[in-house]
Amino acid sequence: MEAPRTAEIVSVGTELLLGQIIDTHAATMARVLAECGIGCQRRATVGDNFTRIVDTFKSALSRSDIVIAIGGLGPTNDDLTREAMAEAMGDELVFEEAYAEELKAWFAARNYTWVERNNKQAMRPKHGRMIPNPNGTAPGLIAEKDGKVMIALPGPKGEFDPMAEGSVREYLQSAGGGMIIASRTVRICGIGESAVDEQLGDLMDQESPTVAPYAQTGEVHVRVTARAASKEAAMEQIIPVCEEIQRRLGKPVYGFDLETLESAILAELERRGETLALAESVTGGGIARRVTSIPGASKVFSGGVVTYTAETKYQLLGVDPDLLDEKGPVSPEVATAMALKAQVKFGAAYALATTGNAGPTSDIDGKPVGLCYVALAKPDGSVEVNEHKLRGLREDIRARLEQFALLKLWLSL
Amino acid sequence: MEAPRTAEIVSVGTELLLGQIIDTHAATMARVLAECGIGCQRRATVGDNFTRIVDTFKSALSRSDIVIAIGGLGPTNDDLTREAMAEAMGDELVFEEAYAEELKAWFAARNYTWVERNNKQAMRPKHGRMIPNPNGTAPGLIAEKDGKVMIALPGPKGEFDPMAEGSVREYLQSAGGGMIIASRTVRICGIGESAVDEQLGDLMDQESPTVAPYAQTGEVHVRVTARAASKEAAMEQIIPVCEEIQRRLGKPVYGFDLETLESAILAELERRGETLALAESVTGGGIARRVTSIPGASKVFSGGVVTYTAETKYQLLGVDPDLLDEKGPVSPEVATAMALKAQVKFGAAYALATTGNAGPTSDIDGKPVGLCYVALAKPDGSVEVNEHKLRGLREDIRARLEQFALLKLWLSL
Repeated sequence: MEAPRTAEIVSVGTELLLGQIIDTHAATMARVLAECGIGCQRRATVGDNFTRIVDTFKSALSRSDIVIAIGGLGPTNDDLTREAMAEAMGDELVFEEAYAEELKAWFAARNYTWVERNNKQAMRPKHGRMIPNPNGTAPGLIAEKDGKVMIALPGPKGEFDPMAEGSVREYLQSAGGGMIIASRTVRICGIGESAVDEQLGDLMDQESPTVAPYAQTGEVHVRVTARAASKEAAMEQIIPVCEEIQRRLGKPVYGFDLETLESAILAELERRGETLALAESVTGGGIARRVTSIPGASKVFSGGVVTYTAETKYQLLGVDPDLLDEKGPVSPEVATAMALKAQVKFGAAYALATTGNAGPTSDIDGKPVGLCYVALAKPDGSVEVNEHKLRGLREDIRARLEQFALLKLWLSL
Repeated sequence: MEAPRTAEIVSVGTELLLGQIIDTHAATMARVLAECGIGCQRRATVGDNFTRIVDTFKSALSRSDIVIAIGGLGPTNDDLTREAMAEAMGDELVFEEAYAEELKAWFAARNYTWVERNNKQAMRPKHGRMIPNPNGTAPGLIAEKDGKVMIALPGPKGEFDPMAEGSVREYLQSAGGGMIIASRTVRICGIGESAVDEQLGDLMDQESPTVAPYAQTGEVHVRVTARAASKEAAMEQIIPVCEEIQRRLGKPVYGFDLETLESAILAELERRGETLALAESVTGGGIARRVTSIPGASKVFSGGVVTYTAETKYQLLGVDPDLLDEKGPVSPEVATAMALKAQVKFGAAYALATTGNAGPTSDIDGKPVGLCYVALAKPDGSVEVNEHKLRGLREDIRARLEQFALLKLWLSL
């Protein structure tokens, strides 16, 4: 078996070291490497400082065959990746006239002002080539020298993602040397990590495929991973293990890989020919957004209302104003009424409603921060309502309640 | 001036190296370090492999005064941070009986099943102490030995965030040695990075405070950073630069630091005593979610509808069915009608409406993927509608349209 080639990812940007933005690209790149069978045992992050970028690139090159740099390819003075890449590889930068012309045309076509410093983006290492960037002005770069490879990708998401998943993935696949690492994720909701661990402990002690759980907001994901000569050969090891996990855990296993709880719910509703409506208060459209993130949601999702004030709960949904007065908007009674009214209004089989206080201050009828209700109106005319006392920041409380609401619907299907 | 103490962050978890989850914690930790005046020049990520975790900890300890490990403190077999921390520092683990008892009581109080392996979480380095974790079972750890400090924090967000922002921040502040780094971010929408760069180029060449732009989805953020003996002294350098930026760029500067476009809009509407309503189709509740993420949104945000099908555009909003038939739901005419109907229905000063095709297939009346419309109904009875031809994945198209809609509203206020 040929030894797999190894890679390191270096993210460049002071904003990353100051914690001002979150590094999602490193995760994307890591996933692409894994899927190409190239082992990534290390990632690093460095700021916009020429000496430190060069040092980080050099030590990564000394350990690994492939070094992938992300960010710092733009036109501004603190974009240093291009220069540092050439320096670390002992190469020089050359000006690519043809690309500079292309760049000028790109600007002209969009009526954008041409700025001289854009020419920086037409420089490339002498032993390298440009990776076309149809979504922006900074091309990516691939250079090969002295048996090592360096790849640089631009930072903006709309440019990075297509390049990482396109040309760079193709390049890496051919570099991967035949062995691949494949994995499947079993997605579980409604039971905790230690309970999953307890029920799957013997599988986790196996050498291959490896089985590892990790906790997400309101979910547990179990990753089953194998290394083999082909994706098919790896899947032959992986799939029976996933089936065993599903057999042991039952309904809480809602899906695999990139399936989400909302996609599992929509698929199941579509299979049954049933529909869903939403009436959101505290979650403010968050559940609707998750549901409509799934392509074709309109087959199942009738629609929703965001009734963020008592007036709209009455005017738009028709919740009894006396009930609102008497019980207050944060109450199981109002949650129930919202679900029933939305079910009728949209003519839907199921209707989910949320109401609560996500904070930060306790100003809704004096109801405490974190007190929330989820109601589910079902096709048989019944309504189930649950109380949740949630802790955390406003965004956490809202995100958890979205999850609890969808979980409630999934478990009742 | 005393040399600042230096820190490195090491994130532990194979799921990070496989790109299956995104490392938001490293960004949080980096921000806390920066705010405590401790320089973080390097971050690293390593998988759940004992030898590699120990090696990574050791080399970080050799370069920096403080090493902060994130993740791998749970009860399962692939949680190795505790053991690796002791090994890297040349320390041993001891069992803390009192904490084991506390842990058992915690489980009993919640009727959770006690599992023996939870006892692992009662182990700590001999030269260390536990950091209380009121939100979970794995305490954090701080150990000091041979002039170096190691800190370990648990991975789940609801446990990590309060610990990083609480006990760990307090500890780091006292370790920061008096000098602090402060920064302010100027948040800009509606103009591109190179235009910002062109207008602020001379400020970016300054040594102190440093001025650096970075592009976000539909926005540019400019970070102004200074190092000084106190936050007040740093701000005396920073604030005049921020004011100069605002003077040069005008209205596109919508806020500072953690202010968001939605919070700027809500504050301005509240100042004017005006309200907002929403009618979302393609954005599916995403704008409502952003607006309601702001505490006190109900003072300004009347409510919204998610009319995801032609039927609900007609039944719920009252959009003329002939118009829907003739022009199709993805049309400037329907966007306009949605905005006007929502404005009336909610009695709001402004109403934003979205309609479009976010893909992935071109199945809405044969309208191409990425074709979207935003309409804004204004207090004077007029409606402005814009066409957007967006590229990218479904989620990108939706996120960008949310941004364009809010931008449109902001620029019209």
